[in-house]
Amino acid sequence: MKRGQPIGIFDSGIGGLTVLRELKKLLPNESFVYVGDTAHVPYGNKSNDSIIKFSKKLTSFLVEQHNVKLVIIACNTASSIVINDLNKSFSVPFIDVISPLKSYLLKPNNEFIQNIGVIGTHNTISSNAYNQFLKEVNINFKIFSKACPLFVPIIEEGLADHEVSKIMIAEYLDSLMKNKIHALILGCTHYPILLNQISSYLGKDVKIINSAYVVASYTKEYLNENAEQNQALTTTKLYLTDESQHFNMFATKFLNTDFNYIKKINLF
Amino acid sequence: MKRGQPIGIFDSGIGGLTVLRELKKLLPNESFVYVGDTAHVPYGNKSNDSIIKFSKKLTSFLVEQHNVKLVIIACNTASSIVINDLNKSFSVPFIDVISPLKSYLLKPNNEFIQNIGVIGTHNTISSNAYNQFLKEVNINFKIFSKACPLFVPIIEEGLADHEVSKIMIAEYLDSLMKNKIHALILGCTHYPILLNQISSYLGKDVKIINSAYVVASYTKEYLNENAEQNQALTTTKLYLTDESQHFNMFATKFLNTDFNYIKKINLF
Repeated sequence: MKRGQPIGIFDSGIGGLTVLRELKKLLPNESFVYVGDTAHVPYGNKSNDSIIKFSKKLTSFLVEQHNVKLVIIACNTASSIVINDLNKSFSVPFIDVISPLKSYLLKPNNEFIQNIGVIGTHNTISSNAYNQFLKEVNINFKIFSKACPLFVPIIEEGLADHEVSKIMIAEYLDSLMKNKIHALILGCTHYPILLNQISSYLGKDVKIINSAYVVASYTKEYLNENAEQNQALTTTKLYLTDESQHFNMFATKFLNTDFNYIKKINLF
Repeated sequence: MKRGQPIGIFDSGIGGLTVLRELKKLLPNESFVYVGDTAHVPYGNKSNDSIIKFSKKLTSFLVEQHNVKLVIIACNTASSIVINDLNKSFSVPFIDVISPLKSYLLKPNNEFIQNIGVIGTHNTISSNAYNQFLKEVNINFKIFSKACPLFVPIIEEGLADHEVSKIMIAEYLDSLMKNKIHALILGCTHYPILLNQISSYLGKDVKIINSAYVVASYTKEYLNENAEQNQALTTTKLYLTDESQHFNMFATKFLNTDFNYIKKINLF
């Protein structure tokens, strides 16, 4: 691993761009290669076998064609399913979007968090990955999870500020509020785009944990410890496995991210 | 083509089961092989090239492995994109979900229909396939189309009877009502599941054209004309290219369809 190498990021589609946004804020001297599997998006309704197969292809692309020093799995569905298989098949280090929560939750100012809400896609929630992980961090955590499958289409259709978004937030989060959660983990990379709306519903007493920020922050610490921070001129490249009509809305409305180039690739 | 051969049906996923339901009602003596490309669902956000590639694979499966006498493209997105390519590559006859509307609209009791609303996914609407087709049927038709991308996730999440469904129906159909449509074409195979809710919003003056029924009715006429109706013991087989968590909800709640078997296949 060398300083000059870029950081690789993969996601099922474009939701992981919220992670890229936080990474670019915290690591302005790094180069990034992002590959979004828009040919198969969403992963939330695919089988584990398929998600593992897709993730290996995306990782091979990042490692073999872009010589990345690190791969960030910017997709909760994939994070909860593929990490073991990828570690067996590749020597590059992986950072998923779940594990970095450990050091975050163990910080002194987060000691008040005991009842934790987790929201995500069907697959992320039914995989129980967050439950297992959080119980390992602290066996006394009480975890309340809820699949919120309509959030992604609401976000991708630009309806974050529409009445429908408010209604579904109330519908999905009501049971979590009744369980008096202290914090809510946004277990899907799309969800930061609903941050303000979710925050309005939850009020000030519930802390929202934005995985995109937590992962970026963890990645910065990791690079510092391993003296791998880049100092060179930076580039940000984006590859998609299929065209994406939602990309422009996402990239321009929410991310303000400049890409050196965007390219469609045939991986499958 | 022989009487004993089954009818093949393909769709991007399970939405086309609404077409299968109507087919089974009208053609109780036929056997069916349905293949749903749940590995790539939804097609609504995929590129034309990908959709053509997927459709050819699905057709090959039906023709080569199941010797079907006829292929029904039970997917509006695919219907609007792939028909020419499929006709060039295969000798089996195809019935898509758009063309059968011609004879339906030209029936004497539908003469009052001049202003036509069309709803569907982004891809179906932006392909302009319905506009072009309807203008060929009658140059005087006034066509008003509207993409309703949230309907599919609302249906697949079992929210057809939820407040959110009412709100989105009003949001999407308001402009069509202002244009005083006489009929509304449900240009997506999922939408028949919202039939009652859409009907309540539109009132009695707007005729809802359910493509699933129109296609089944056309297929029956086609088989009658070609003396190809089956008389044998019937079977209904379902293949999916990936597991589908929505399948059970769909098949049991909405379709009451018995399958002789359901199998996952690796086509891709």
